[in-house]
Amino acid sequence: MSGQLEGQRVLVTQCTDYMGPPIAALFEAEGAEVIPSKGILRSDEQVRALVEDAGPLDIIAANLAIDPSGAKVGEIEDQGWSALFAAMVDPLMWLVRAAAPGMVERGAGKIVAVTSAAPLRGIPGVSGYCAARGAQNAFVRAAGLELAPANVQFNAIAQNYVSNAEYYPPEHVASERFQRHLKHNVPAGRIADPRETAELALFLASQRSNFIVGQVVPFAGGWVTTT
Amino acid sequence: MSGQLEGQRVLVTQCTDYMGPPIAALFEAEGAEVIPSKGILRSDEQVRALVEDAGPLDIIAANLAIDPSGAKVGEIEDQGWSALFAAMVDPLMWLVRAAAPGMVERGAGKIVAVTSAAPLRGIPGVSGYCAARGAQNAFVRAAGLELAPANVQFNAIAQNYVSNAEYYPPEHVASERFQRHLKHNVPAGRIADPRETAELALFLASQRSNFIVGQVVPFAGGWVTTT
Amino acid sequence: MSGQLEGQRVLVTQCTDYMGPPIAALFEAEGAEVIPSKGILRSDEQVRALVEDAGPLDIIAANLAIDPSGAKVGEIEDQGWSALFAAMVDPLMWLVRAAAPGMVERGAGKIVAVTSAAPLRGIPGVSGYCAARGAQNAFVRAAGLELAPANVQFNAIAQNYVSNAEYYPPEHVASERFQRHLKHNVPAGRIADPRETAELALFLASQRSNFIVGQVVPFAGGWVTTT
Amino acid sequence: MSGQLEGQRVLVTQCTDYMGPPIAALFEAEGAEVIPSKGILRSDEQVRALVEDAGPLDIIAANLAIDPSGAKVGEIEDQGWSALFAAMVDPLMWLVRAAAPGMVERGAGKIVAVTSAAPLRGIPGVSGYCAARGAQNAFVRAAGLELAPANVQFNAIAQNYVSNAEYYPPEHVASERFQRHLKHNVPAGRIADPRETAELALFLASQRSNFIVGQVVPFAGGWVTTT
Repeated sequence: MSGQLEGQRVLVTQCTDYMGPPIAALFEAEGAEVIPSKGILRSDEQVRALVEDAGPLDIIAANLAIDPSGAKVGEIEDQGWSALFAAMVDPLMWLVRAAAPGMVERGAGKIVAVTSAAPLRGIPGVSGYCAARGAQNAFVRAAGLELAPANVQFNAIAQNYVSNAEYYPPEHVASERFQRHLKHNVPAGRIADPRETAELALFLASQRSNFIVGQVVPFAGGWVTTT
Repeated sequence: MSGQLEGQRVLVTQCTDYMGPPIAALFEAEGAEVIPSKGILRSDEQVRALVEDAGPLDIIAANLAIDPSGAKVGEIEDQGWSALFAAMVDPLMWLVRAAAPGMVERGAGKIVAVTSAAPLRGIPGVSGYCAARGAQNAFVRAAGLELAPANVQFNAIAQNYVSNAEYYPPEHVASERFQRHLKHNVPAGRIADPRETAELALFLASQRSNFIVGQVVPFAGGWVTTT
Repeated sequence: MSGQLEGQRVLVTQCTDYMGPPIAALFEAEGAEVIPSKGILRSDEQVRALVEDAGPLDIIAANLAIDPSGAKVGEIEDQGWSALFAAMVDPLMWLVRAAAPGMVERGAGKIVAVTSAAPLRGIPGVSGYCAARGAQNAFVRAAGLELAPANVQFNAIAQNYVSNAEYYPPEHVASERFQRHLKHNVPAGRIADPRETAELALFLASQRSNFIVGQVVPFAGGWVTTT
Repeated sequence: MSGQLEGQRVLVTQCTDYMGPPIAALFEAEGAEVIPSKGILRSDEQVRALVEDAGPLDIIAANLAIDPSGAKVGEIEDQGWSALFAAMVDPLMWLVRAAAPGMVERGAGKIVAVTSAAPLRGIPGVSGYCAARGAQNAFVRAAGLELAPANVQFNAIAQNYVSNAEYYPPEHVASERFQRHLKHNVPAGRIADPRETAELALFLASQRSNFIVGQVVPFAGGWVTTT
């Protein structure tokens, strides 16, 4: 299989973090021209320049992540709380604000956000992270429905239990305790390889999923499913 | 019926806005001592002082609202976007951070947030509002599950189509166009009286709903329901 | 508090099973005239006669339950499978078919079904039970939206972890293993008293919840919440 | 792109109805050996024979459909009601009961059910259809979580507004009234081609989606999305 994204121009944000590397690799293998952006997006100006310099974009892989910064509700720190929204919520809006109008004008476009399944179930001890990811998911739903009539498909991958160095350090994953946790909490019985996220991102970025819009797809081995 | 909240001490935020007045009125009629707070909460310091001055609280009615500030995704303005999170998301965390530990220590407490059903379905043209309300809902879910073991119940009323001067000016409601819209979109065929929100808030604030935690209750005449 | 259902005529099905006794008791204490029906409803004829003999009904508490009859998918037995639908799904339709038109004609009515939260998350080993309860929940949603314009409110209580002799025998509840299970799976940390279900049923059967229609309310101590 | 299902043996039920033809065609084009089954499945014996004769199956496309048979709740007919469950719910269980144990034993398998999005929102006037489809969706969730640890992925496509002769006769689709309905209710602004369902079925049947289990994927152009 190859060439699903032949000639497509794709912006991949935080291309060296979180789900950036496997998405960039798979999309390139499928023929896309990947425009990489490194690091957390810090300002609207930065995003506008990025989008302008990139030229017309067919696809955006909005991969926005930061350390979840867990804290009990009584111990949430202002800085950690703000950092979550600054790194994950504001940049998602900046990207869509800067790039969606061009997609609408050209009558086609795909935006795939990698978010989290955490807010779908709620996880004690990381309510700030859940709130910020919940804001992303809600933004995808509303903006996705808004962009749908213009043939722009905007969806999210709400993942959990996908391997990555930031959230699941190898030694943690290898521990007996974590393996037991997996058996009890993740019906699939394992954590996913990040390339599996990339496959779902590819499906959502391809012309094969044009009827899926404004959707937050749970991707968590059964830890949470749609109801 | 009377006295369901006899002797309960209740903080009602933005007590003269949105759902503040009917909640304050009904809770007082049910025997509660209402500690009113006026206006949008602007800082953590303000919230800490408010909670400290209030003394031990049994119930918080976290009524946090601001003009929805609709805008197409390409036309979202930084100020409007930030104002939504500043007025609705940050204060909800401040309130819980300041007051929940005392509730946990006392082994009892109720927090009822009035949020919105908008993020549950997604509404084109108000993606910023949906994002902020989605953050609130996700925070309620996570923090609600966290506080549940300590016998503190934190839930949200996710409303839409509830009459209030800010969102539904009387002349708009009376228009033929809006009435037709209601028939097509709201199975109940009407907008609700804000006292109906207050009744749901009362149920969630009473000892009669102690097994409901971390829940975002759709309250929208069937415009959206749980799935 | 008293008299919320003063003069209301309420049919309570399977009045000596499951949630029947606490609902009948609380509704009577609130002034309702309870018309009790004993045992599983076996035929449309039986239901039609029941509804006809009852005279005009203001409220139906559709309490329909049967032993969950767990089985791995490869070992589901035809008889157990059919019994679930025969006891829980068909009678719910019969009741609504027989009684809703009269409510519609009178311009008012309340139907509260006691169903289950099991299908909201899915429970391995009881897929048949989940399917039947899922059918009930879906029926409530569709029929609830259909009846809403006529001022008839039809909702469901989707419960789990509510004490009852059939599903949670006392010796099972008392076991250390079950108590550990509760701590890990139910944020509220306990199973509910059936009177708590009755309180929610009362709220949904009262005039205080007229804007809630077609809704399946999770009632499970946080084991599942709306997303 | 080709060969995603090279050498895979796939049972496609009701292969000449509903989503059967496009799924069979696409799966064959991707290298699968399609074992076709025609018509509504009428008995467990028939299904057992079908599965036995087929030999080891890698994939089942559980395409089970029947005319929705709409009726107001007061006018539901016993025959129409029973026919919905007999054609859509029972056969899904029979298929899984007959085929899943072999998949579990072989340590791999895929089951993709084509169901409906109708029960996710609830549609007045077709409560029977919603109930039966809701039973299917709930069965997929529970059985899907049960089968997940054995590396068998069971998911559903909950579709609406997908073109097919049974539900959307061409003359109906072409009518101005229906086109206006689409603009108001389906953000994508169109009905989907059944080949789009087949593409989603292919993704769910391929090795590229192994971390998705027990999930009911809304596929409705934004008419409903996950919340």
